[in-house]
Amino acid sequence: MLSTLFNHRSIRKYKSNPIDESVLDEILQAGIRASNTGNMQVYSIIVTKNPEIKEKLWEQHFKQDMVKQAPVVLTFCADFNRFNKWCELRNAKPGYDNFLSFYTATVDAVIAAQNVALAAEVHGLGICYLGTTNYTADKICEILNLPEGVVPVTTLVVGYADENPDLTSRLPESAIIHNETYHDFSNEDINEIYKELENSELANNLVTENGTENFAQIFTQKRYTRSNNIHFSNVLLNVIKKQKFMNNE
Amino acid sequence: MLSTLFNHRSIRKYKSNPIDESVLDEILQAGIRASNTGNMQVYSIIVTKNPEIKEKLWEQHFKQDMVKQAPVVLTFCADFNRFNKWCELRNAKPGYDNFLSFYTATVDAVIAAQNVALAAEVHGLGICYLGTTNYTADKICEILNLPEGVVPVTTLVVGYADENPDLTSRLPESAIIHNETYHDFSNEDINEIYKELENSELANNLVTENGTENFAQIFTQKRYTRSNNIHFSNVLLNVIKKQKFMNNE
Repeated sequence: MLSTLFNHRSIRKYKSNPIDESVLDEILQAGIRASNTGNMQVYSIIVTKNPEIKEKLWEQHFKQDMVKQAPVVLTFCADFNRFNKWCELRNAKPGYDNFLSFYTATVDAVIAAQNVALAAEVHGLGICYLGTTNYTADKICEILNLPEGVVPVTTLVVGYADENPDLTSRLPESAIIHNETYHDFSNEDINEIYKELENSELANNLVTENGTENFAQIFTQKRYTRSNNIHFSNVLLNVIKKQKFMNNE
Repeated sequence: MLSTLFNHRSIRKYKSNPIDESVLDEILQAGIRASNTGNMQVYSIIVTKNPEIKEKLWEQHFKQDMVKQAPVVLTFCADFNRFNKWCELRNAKPGYDNFLSFYTATVDAVIAAQNVALAAEVHGLGICYLGTTNYTADKICEILNLPEGVVPVTTLVVGYADENPDLTSRLPESAIIHNETYHDFSNEDINEIYKELENSELANNLVTENGTENFAQIFTQKRYTRSNNIHFSNVLLNVIKKQKFMNNE
């Protein structure tokens, strides 16, 4: 188990081999056992294997080939629809059309997703999370027929790896861990924390290819630009509102 | 590993035994290996052991005794502060003061939290997630000195269990898993899905104790009421704004 945690690599190239149904079922069951808020289980998992539906999802996930290659695409959703329907059938007035409920359901969905990811890895499968889920949440709602009370949170592609990538580097522990309370960073701290990453071959190659001054600019100018972030923020907030999670008064 | 996933129980009573430093460090390292967006690692983990600070957190976590009992309290935060500081030092203009960035960092924080939770369980420790983190995020920011760009997402208490609870029930798989696309629920589906839960001893006892008509009303009238949800939605949205994650224009 610990070795699974320590050996995680995101897999972006997949073989076409299908996943055995019993294996897939066990992986999904591992997700369902995860911690969740008040045992309400306010999330759902959409299991997409149909090539036509996967192709529609592939378009929304920025045409990353792994979405078509991997035999299974799992979309994890914040989901109060089922719970609301239950309440309404029981003369119990649901009050879950607000941001807190959405956020709670988001946390539940991600905890379940990580259980599924790890169970898949234990079974020798590869996985990759797709952050694009948030960027095109509006279109994904349409493709997957998500009703009010349901918002896609994250996606996992799952399948047998057709690549064997190296372990990616991580920042030193002092970048992530704070003792007792938060200890903010001096310029010297930041230089020290990012030194290894900035001097890596990966960073140097990207800087050369893209003609930026340094590695930080790869993020701000190429990968995660302000204008894209603002655009996608509004897409996501509109979906949250449209799916009836923004009644905060 | 799979047995760890399938045997998870939330632990709410802890022995006072401390956690060995090397064990705690390995658990945190397991968190740091988790999948994250663009390898930006935009989250942080605050490790609180000091009884005085824990007591302040305990107050905000609705005075749940496990916060004082457990030797370690881990607050997982969405954190763009470190990344922003790095960008600014490198003449790279960060555009991460928006909702998408906050939501991305939330997902990263929760994935790391679940790795930490599972690594702790492999080491024979118990854990419990605290959803109260979102309800009192404003006060938790003060206690933990969280700067702009940092918002608490979830909390784990970690320690040696002083109870041995049964596995909690889960809804049948048909409640959570949808094939290909979302298949909405008929009234009959809902009745079937919730039948076992509603007929459980737990549900019957709670209904009797609280004098509600049924189990659904335990949630809507006692545990997660509309008025609380709306109040806490606004607390959380205000924190997101105050910590500079709502510049979406």
